[in-house]
Amino acid sequence: MNVQQIVLNSRPEGMPSLTNFSLTDASLAPIKAGEFLVKNLWMSVDPYMRGRMIDRKSYIAPFALGEVLEGGATGEIIESNHADFPVGAKVSSMNGWRSHYITDGSDHTLLPETPLCPSHFLGVLGMPGMTAWTGLNRIAELKEGETLFVSAASGAVGSVACQLGLLMGAKVVASVGSDEKAETLKAMGVEQVINYKTTDNLSAALLAAAPQGIDVYFENVGGEHLSAALDNMNDHGRIAVCGMISQYNDTIPTPGPSNLAYIIMKKLKIEGFIVFEHWAHYPEFAKQMGQWLASGQVKAEQTIYEGLEQAPNAFIGLFEGKNSGKMVVKLA
Amino acid sequence: MNVQQIVLNSRPEGMPSLTNFSLTDASLAPIKAGEFLVKNLWMSVDPYMRGRMIDRKSYIAPFALGEVLEGGATGEIIESNHADFPVGAKVSSMNGWRSHYITDGSDHTLLPETPLCPSHFLGVLGMPGMTAWTGLNRIAELKEGETLFVSAASGAVGSVACQLGLLMGAKVVASVGSDEKAETLKAMGVEQVINYKTTDNLSAALLAAAPQGIDVYFENVGGEHLSAALDNMNDHGRIAVCGMISQYNDTIPTPGPSNLAYIIMKKLKIEGFIVFEHWAHYPEFAKQMGQWLASGQVKAEQTIYEGLEQAPNAFIGLFEGKNSGKMVVKLA
Repeated sequence: MNVQQIVLNSRPEGMPSLTNFSLTDASLAPIKAGEFLVKNLWMSVDPYMRGRMIDRKSYIAPFALGEVLEGGATGEIIESNHADFPVGAKVSSMNGWRSHYITDGSDHTLLPETPLCPSHFLGVLGMPGMTAWTGLNRIAELKEGETLFVSAASGAVGSVACQLGLLMGAKVVASVGSDEKAETLKAMGVEQVINYKTTDNLSAALLAAAPQGIDVYFENVGGEHLSAALDNMNDHGRIAVCGMISQYNDTIPTPGPSNLAYIIMKKLKIEGFIVFEHWAHYPEFAKQMGQWLASGQVKAEQTIYEGLEQAPNAFIGLFEGKNSGKMVVKLA
Repeated sequence: MNVQQIVLNSRPEGMPSLTNFSLTDASLAPIKAGEFLVKNLWMSVDPYMRGRMIDRKSYIAPFALGEVLEGGATGEIIESNHADFPVGAKVSSMNGWRSHYITDGSDHTLLPETPLCPSHFLGVLGMPGMTAWTGLNRIAELKEGETLFVSAASGAVGSVACQLGLLMGAKVVASVGSDEKAETLKAMGVEQVINYKTTDNLSAALLAAAPQGIDVYFENVGGEHLSAALDNMNDHGRIAVCGMISQYNDTIPTPGPSNLAYIIMKKLKIEGFIVFEHWAHYPEFAKQMGQWLASGQVKAEQTIYEGLEQAPNAFIGLFEGKNSGKMVVKLA
């Protein structure tokens, strides 16, 4: 059958552009014994994918030029020769950026029966939600009554981190890039939201928003945000470093904060993490998050682009702040 | 009686100079009930004191202008009206920078009977030695077979960190500022020593010295050293942040490393610490260190300046790299 897929045409330098991507046709052979055919319903675009477009050694192999891109996706099985994966079942995989594919089911997870849209398994119930949960619970060990600062707070990870912070009994301070995003977070119960794009002095704004100081910083941005957080951290504060999106498109390395000596003076702990290393805790997370979603205590906000051909635009949009909540692409 | 002391005359801007200090005379009243008179034998100069010369909030109050400076000292009791502190006993205190003083004994520790020179209670058996031990054992949790990188490795803390690293079964890579210091460390058993002052590319030098990568970095320097360490850290590496001496005399803030994103990619943990918060573990440390010193497994190197009037020179010398091992001033 004829299918469509998006390949990496060239490696971005600086901000990715549409010319880095090509939409191509391919044909799939009939499925063999032990295989099944998946029609993707939703695919994910995430900031970490920018790192995979660089040809370097990292925690995950770089994308190859001319090859189909990869990323989270949820799809429906439309043909099957595999007993464990029947037709009609829905699966999540890393086989995004394509309309259909054939697999033997390795690295595939059957989605549970649920009234939730399968897109949420790419967001609040998937990698981004699990990242927020891991950073707060397993890395920073946020405690009730503490003050949490979340940057890129309207993103897929940040918006969950803010909501979990509130559920954990923390005071939450958030930073976002537009007044609309600030309003969305305020509607979720976050009292202090800074629009960093209209703020001259982020450190002073953070002090005004949290005069009691910051105990935990959930770091998604880097650069000036990290510097402002360091200025305002309390003694024995913890920084869970999830991402530094402000630097992913740098062509010239940006210097780091000049106030790193606060690490000593305030006895801070800064820890980077990759959620996949914590995946053994996914069932624990999924159980809690499923309950919060069902009860409405966590809201699953999404920004949806429609059509595989829109996936590059959706990806580029991540770095232009076009998403509020999880950015997903609806494929079918 | 007439005594001598050194007061902070003005706050240094950039590198401290002799004009920041004044040697002054004072007179002590006779001791009262519950007091004793100490003649200081040795005093310590340490890099952290530079921070106390700045008028700012930190983990320890700033020095006051016109007041006698403070710092570690060991002395002998020469008159006493205090049952617990008899004449002839030796004590350690924070009452350095003066020839004599009267005290009621609060914050004083009696030194044990030992053939060791009392100066070592300011160095390998005191705060700097305890700092090295704490950083490796309680912060970075260095394990046998790992690779340890120590900067400012010929300093009071660094030289102990190198030796403890070897005793703990680590491969040790050290960075120092002169070939003589490198030779001293090599004589202690450190195989890979980098003279950063004659090295164009510290990151490349570190890669050559430790192609297997760095598991633990004992950070005393900051700046380029931190950047080179980040380049060469292994996954799940730990950085114990003890000091950033390269920045203590900055008049304009120095930007931090541009490669902080390695914190995420390599899942690093960076933790600052202040040894005083770990002082409950001093007896455990002192027991081990006493045995290592007695057996010759740890060598207690010192650089000695003679006379209270030389204390400012000794302090300034810390930032010029004039010490090898612990910098101390012999007062009597």
